[in-house]
Amino acid sequence: MVKIKIGVIGVGRIGKMHIKNIANLRDQFEITAISDPNNPELAQIAEDYHIQKFSKDYHDVLSGDVDAVVIASSTNTHAKIITAAAKAGKDIMCEKPIDTDIERIKKVLKVVDDNGVILQIGFNRRFDHNFRKIHDYVVDGTIGNPHIIKVSSRDPEPPSYDYVKVSGGLFSDMMIHDLDMVRYLSNSEVVEVYANGAVLVDPEIGKLGDIDTAIVSLKFANGALGVIDNSRQAVYGYDQRAEVFGSKGQAFSENDKNSNVELDLNDGGHLDKIPYFFIDRYVQTYVDEFKEFYKTIVNQTEPIVTGLDGLRAVQLAQACQKSLETHEPVKL
Amino acid sequence: MVKIKIGVIGVGRIGKMHIKNIANLRDQFEITAISDPNNPELAQIAEDYHIQKFSKDYHDVLSGDVDAVVIASSTNTHAKIITAAAKAGKDIMCEKPIDTDIERIKKVLKVVDDNGVILQIGFNRRFDHNFRKIHDYVVDGTIGNPHIIKVSSRDPEPPSYDYVKVSGGLFSDMMIHDLDMVRYLSNSEVVEVYANGAVLVDPEIGKLGDIDTAIVSLKFANGALGVIDNSRQAVYGYDQRAEVFGSKGQAFSENDKNSNVELDLNDGGHLDKIPYFFIDRYVQTYVDEFKEFYKTIVNQTEPIVTGLDGLRAVQLAQACQKSLETHEPVKL
Amino acid sequence: MVKIKIGVIGVGRIGKMHIKNIANLRDQFEITAISDPNNPELAQIAEDYHIQKFSKDYHDVLSGDVDAVVIASSTNTHAKIITAAAKAGKDIMCEKPIDTDIERIKKVLKVVDDNGVILQIGFNRRFDHNFRKIHDYVVDGTIGNPHIIKVSSRDPEPPSYDYVKVSGGLFSDMMIHDLDMVRYLSNSEVVEVYANGAVLVDPEIGKLGDIDTAIVSLKFANGALGVIDNSRQAVYGYDQRAEVFGSKGQAFSENDKNSNVELDLNDGGHLDKIPYFFIDRYVQTYVDEFKEFYKTIVNQTEPIVTGLDGLRAVQLAQACQKSLETHEPVKL
Amino acid sequence: MVKIKIGVIGVGRIGKMHIKNIANLRDQFEITAISDPNNPELAQIAEDYHIQKFSKDYHDVLSGDVDAVVIASSTNTHAKIITAAAKAGKDIMCEKPIDTDIERIKKVLKVVDDNGVILQIGFNRRFDHNFRKIHDYVVDGTIGNPHIIKVSSRDPEPPSYDYVKVSGGLFSDMMIHDLDMVRYLSNSEVVEVYANGAVLVDPEIGKLGDIDTAIVSLKFANGALGVIDNSRQAVYGYDQRAEVFGSKGQAFSENDKNSNVELDLNDGGHLDKIPYFFIDRYVQTYVDEFKEFYKTIVNQTEPIVTGLDGLRAVQLAQACQKSLETHEPVKL
Repeated sequence: MVKIKIGVIGVGRIGKMHIKNIANLRDQFEITAISDPNNPELAQIAEDYHIQKFSKDYHDVLSGDVDAVVIASSTNTHAKIITAAAKAGKDIMCEKPIDTDIERIKKVLKVVDDNGVILQIGFNRRFDHNFRKIHDYVVDGTIGNPHIIKVSSRDPEPPSYDYVKVSGGLFSDMMIHDLDMVRYLSNSEVVEVYANGAVLVDPEIGKLGDIDTAIVSLKFANGALGVIDNSRQAVYGYDQRAEVFGSKGQAFSENDKNSNVELDLNDGGHLDKIPYFFIDRYVQTYVDEFKEFYKTIVNQTEPIVTGLDGLRAVQLAQACQKSLETHEPVKL
Repeated sequence: MVKIKIGVIGVGRIGKMHIKNIANLRDQFEITAISDPNNPELAQIAEDYHIQKFSKDYHDVLSGDVDAVVIASSTNTHAKIITAAAKAGKDIMCEKPIDTDIERIKKVLKVVDDNGVILQIGFNRRFDHNFRKIHDYVVDGTIGNPHIIKVSSRDPEPPSYDYVKVSGGLFSDMMIHDLDMVRYLSNSEVVEVYANGAVLVDPEIGKLGDIDTAIVSLKFANGALGVIDNSRQAVYGYDQRAEVFGSKGQAFSENDKNSNVELDLNDGGHLDKIPYFFIDRYVQTYVDEFKEFYKTIVNQTEPIVTGLDGLRAVQLAQACQKSLETHEPVKL
Repeated sequence: MVKIKIGVIGVGRIGKMHIKNIANLRDQFEITAISDPNNPELAQIAEDYHIQKFSKDYHDVLSGDVDAVVIASSTNTHAKIITAAAKAGKDIMCEKPIDTDIERIKKVLKVVDDNGVILQIGFNRRFDHNFRKIHDYVVDGTIGNPHIIKVSSRDPEPPSYDYVKVSGGLFSDMMIHDLDMVRYLSNSEVVEVYANGAVLVDPEIGKLGDIDTAIVSLKFANGALGVIDNSRQAVYGYDQRAEVFGSKGQAFSENDKNSNVELDLNDGGHLDKIPYFFIDRYVQTYVDEFKEFYKTIVNQTEPIVTGLDGLRAVQLAQACQKSLETHEPVKL
Repeated sequence: MVKIKIGVIGVGRIGKMHIKNIANLRDQFEITAISDPNNPELAQIAEDYHIQKFSKDYHDVLSGDVDAVVIASSTNTHAKIITAAAKAGKDIMCEKPIDTDIERIKKVLKVVDDNGVILQIGFNRRFDHNFRKIHDYVVDGTIGNPHIIKVSSRDPEPPSYDYVKVSGGLFSDMMIHDLDMVRYLSNSEVVEVYANGAVLVDPEIGKLGDIDTAIVSLKFANGALGVIDNSRQAVYGYDQRAEVFGSKGQAFSENDKNSNVELDLNDGGHLDKIPYFFIDRYVQTYVDEFKEFYKTIVNQTEPIVTGLDGLRAVQLAQACQKSLETHEPVKL
C-alpha cells in the first residue's frame, strides 16, 4: 500500500482534528509537515505525532517532502494557498468555502485545472453513512427518478454574535452545507431558489442583519423539486435528516442517537438524545473524507467533492440571499 | 346519554361509510332518515340499518324527525343544502369543500351564523391520532412557539383523467387537506404562499393542465415558516406525515404501518407496508369526527373544524394556484 | 353473501363486546337470540340491537332460529353448553378455557367431533395483526426452520386478590394465552416445559399461593427452543411482543403505540404510550375472530383456533404449574 | 494529564487491534514495549507505532519501562503472565477468560490481590453504548427493582470445526459474554441456571459434541429471573440485544444498524443491515475499555470488569454445561 506524504496548513481546532484523524490512517498517510502562523503548541504537536517539520509559514510545508496538503487555515487565505499548492503540484484537500468571491473561486479552479492536481473540498457530510446510503439509492436507480428532495438541518444553538456579524449570513455559513447536500442527493443541479427567512430564535440576530430560521424552495435541472429548512436552535440537538422521493420509492434518514435504548415508563417511551453537534454527529465523516482523498490520489479519480462543488455551493448561498432580499425566486 | 336523531343526505361511497360508522355509535346517534337522488339500494340500506325514512329528495330528510344532518352529496349541492338545513334549524356535518366559490361560501356561512346552528366540515385528518397528538403538543405549549411546520402528503396513485379534468387542480382536490392541516398544526393563519409545481408522474396530467408534484412554501401570522409537499403517486402507499418544530422541541409523526413486525433477513431489515389509501389510513378519523360532532352538539361548543376552516382552505388552495401561475409569492 | 344467524350465550362484559362487534358485521351475521341468567339489561340490549329473542335460559337460544352460537358465559358452564350446542347441531365460538379439567375437555371435544359442528376457541391473539404476520412468515417459509420462539407478555396491573384466589394461578389465567401463542408461532407442539416463578410485584399474591413473575423455558417437537416471560405488572402498559428466529432470518413485533408521534425535547426523544390493556390492544382481534368464524362456517374449513388448541393450552398451563412445584422439567 | 507507559503481550489479531487503539489514545498512553513469541511482523509494528522495545519474550515487556500491561496472548498463558505481571507490580488488562480452571483462577486472583495491582478483564461489551445505558438505568434506579433480565446474542456464522473441538463448548466460548452481561445488567449475582440446548444449525457441530442453539433460564440473588438465548448462526448478522424489566419500567436495546436510512418501496419498508460481527459491532468498546482502564489506574478505583467478574463468568458457563448434561437446574 502506497503511503501518501501529507502536510497540514492551518492547525486550529479543525486542523488539529485532521492531524489526529490522518495520523490514525497509518497505512495511507504519513504527516511530514505542518504549519500555522499563530499556534503556540505547534512544536509539541509535531513531537506528539512524530512530524518532522513544522513552521509558521505554509510555504515551508509546500517546499517540504509532501505529496499532498490539507488546507484548514482561515477562509480568506484559502484562495492564495490553493493557488500556491497547485502550482507546487500538490494534491489538495481544502476546507469549505473556497472563497466568498465567485470570480476569485473561478480563477482558483482554473489554476488547479491547469496544474492537473486534485482538489477535494471539505463538504464532509457527503461522507456520512446515512446521506451516502441515500445517495447510493438515488445513483443506483433504487428509488427511480428523483421527484422531491428534502433536507432538514438545525443547529443546537446559535453561533456567537461576533460570528454572525462576519459570517455572511445563515445561507453562507450554515445552509451552504445543505445546498451542497441537495446537489449530492438529487444527482442534479439546482436551477432556481426561493427563500423565506425569519427571526424567531433571537431578535438580536435580526438586529445584526441576519435571520435564524429559513425555508428554501428549490427546482432542479432534472425537473425535481426540493426544500431545505434550517434553524439556528434545535434544543434537542443537532437535527440532520434528509429524504429523496422518486418514481420507484423513497429513502429517508432518521437522526442518529447516542444509543439504541428505549426506556418505557408509565408516562410513555423515552429515547436517547441525538448527538449534540457536528463534531459528535459527523466524527466518522472526518475520517472517511481522508480515506476517500487517499483513494482519489492513488487512483487519480475525481473526488467525491470537487472544486466545482465548492463553487456551486457558494453561488447557491448567494442566490438564496438575493431571493430573501428581493422576495422573488432567483434563477441560476 | 342523549341520543341525537340524525339524517344522511347523499348516500354514495362516503355517505354509506358514514351511515355504517354512525350506526355503530349507538349510544350517541339514531339515524332516522336518509336521502339520495340516484342510489338504487336506498331502501335496502334503510332496512339493513333500521332507518324509518328514505327518499330521493333531501327536503324529506330536513322535514323528518332529525336534529342534525350529514351532507355527503356532490360538492355543487353543498351550498344549497347547508342553507336549507340551517334555515330548518338542523346542526350540520358537511363534507369538504363547502363550495369552490369564495363569495358563495361566505354567504352560506352567514346563513349558518344567522340561524345559530352548528356547522362542522369534514376535514377528517384533524381527528387522526397522530396529527391530533402533534396539535396537542403545540396547543399545550410542549414544543414552545412553532417555528417550522411541515406536511408531507402523497397519494398512492393518481386519480382518473376524468377526475383531473374537473377537480380544479392538485391544490384544490388534494393539497386542500394539507392546507387545512398546517393551519391546525400551527394554531395560526397562513399569510403568504409560494408554490412550485411539476409534472413528473404522468405527462398526460400535464396535458390536462394540472400538475402532479408540488412544494408550497408558507408564512404564518405568528411568524412561523412552513412547507407542504405533495405527489400524486407514492408507489409505497399513502404517505401522510407531519412535523412541527418549535422553541422548546419538535413533534413529528411517522407513517402508520399495517403491522409492527420487523423481518430480518440476510439482505437487511424489512418493515410492513403502510396502509394503501385514505379509507384504510384514516378509518378511525371517520368515526371520531362523529364522536366529536356529537359532543359539539350536546355541549354547544365550537366544532374542531368550523365553517371558517372550510372557507380558509379553499382560499389557500386558490392562492397556491395563483402563485404557481404567476411564479410569485401570494399574500392572503 | 350468506348471513349466519347467531346467538350469544352469556352477556357479561365480554359477551356485550361480542354483540357489538357482531352487530357491526352486518353482511356476515344477524344476531337472533341472546341469553344470560343474571343480566338485568338483557331486554334493553335486545331492543338496541334489534334482536328478536332474549332469555335467562341458554336452551332458548339453542332452540331458536340460530345457525351458530357464541359462548361467553362463566368458565364452569362452557363444557355443558358446548355439549348441548353441539348436539343441537350449532357451530360454536367459545371463550377460553374450555374447562379446567383435561378429561372433561376431551369428552367435550369428542361430542363436538361426533356431531360434526365447528368449534372455535377464543384465543383472540391469534388474530392480532402483529402475531398473525409473524405466523405467516413462519408458515410460508420466509424465516426458514424455526429455532427460537420468544413471547413477552406483561399485564399493566395485577388482578384483584379475589380473582387470584380462584384463577388457578398465573399459568392458567395469564400465560395460557402465551402457551397458545408459542404453538401458533412455532407451527409445532411443545414437548417439554421448565418453569421459574417469583413473587416480585406484590407479596400478598405470594401469600395467596400464586406467583406474579414467571419465565418458562420450552422445547418443541420440531427441535426448536422457546421462552415465555410474564409479569403481572408492567407500569408502562400492556406489553405484548413476540419473536421467531429461524434458519433464514427472524421476525419480531414491537408493541403498538397510541400514536406514531415522536416528541424531541432537550432531554431526549419521547414516544407515545402503548395501549393500557387488552380491550384497547386487541380491539381488532375481537372483530377479526368473528370474520374468521364466518369464513370457517361458510367454507366448512378448520378454525384458526380449534378445540384441540383449547385442550393443549390447558395441558401446557398445568405442566408449567407442575414444573414450578417440582423444580424440574416436565414432559408432555 | 499523566501518561501511562504500557506494554502489550501477545500481538495476534486482537493484540494488534489493541495496539492501534491504544496508540490513538495519545493523551493517556504511551506504548513502550510489545512481545509475541511468533509474530514475524513484530519489528515492523514496533517501528510503525514508534515503540522502543519488542521481544519474543514477555518477560522483556515486564522488565521494560512499563506501568501496565495488556495480555492478549493465548488463553493457556493468561494465568502465568498475570501472575508474573502482578508480582512485577504492573497493572493488568487481560483478555477473557482468565483460565478454564476455577481453582487456578482463584490462585491468580489472590496473587493480584496480594500485590495490590489492578486487574481488568476484557469483557468489552460492558463498555457498549447500548448496554451501558441500560446498566445505568438499573443502577440509578430509573427502572426500579429488576424483575426480568433478557439477553439475545447470536453470531452471524458458526466458528470452524477445529475451533469447536477445543473451545470448551458454546457456554464457554460464546455465552460466557452473556453470562457476564446479565450480571452487569442485573447488578446482582446468578444463583441458579437451567440450560436447554439443541443442534439446529449444523449437525456436524453436534457430532463434535457441542450444541449451536441454547436457552438458559436464570435466577438472581435479588430475586429476579432471567433468560439468555444464543444461536451460532443469525443469517442477518450479529444480533446483540438486551432488556431489563423492573418495578418502575423497562429498558431495552435494539440492534445498531449500518445506517438509519429507511427505504420505502412498493413491497414495504427496508432497513439497513446490522453490523456483521463483533469487530464492527463493538469497535467503540475496544477503545472505551482502555479509556476506563486509564481512569482506573489514575484514580486507583475498581475496574468496570474485575478479576472476580472473570471468575464468575467461567463458573456460570460451567454450571450451564452441567445443567445441560444433567437436564436439571444447577445452583451456584
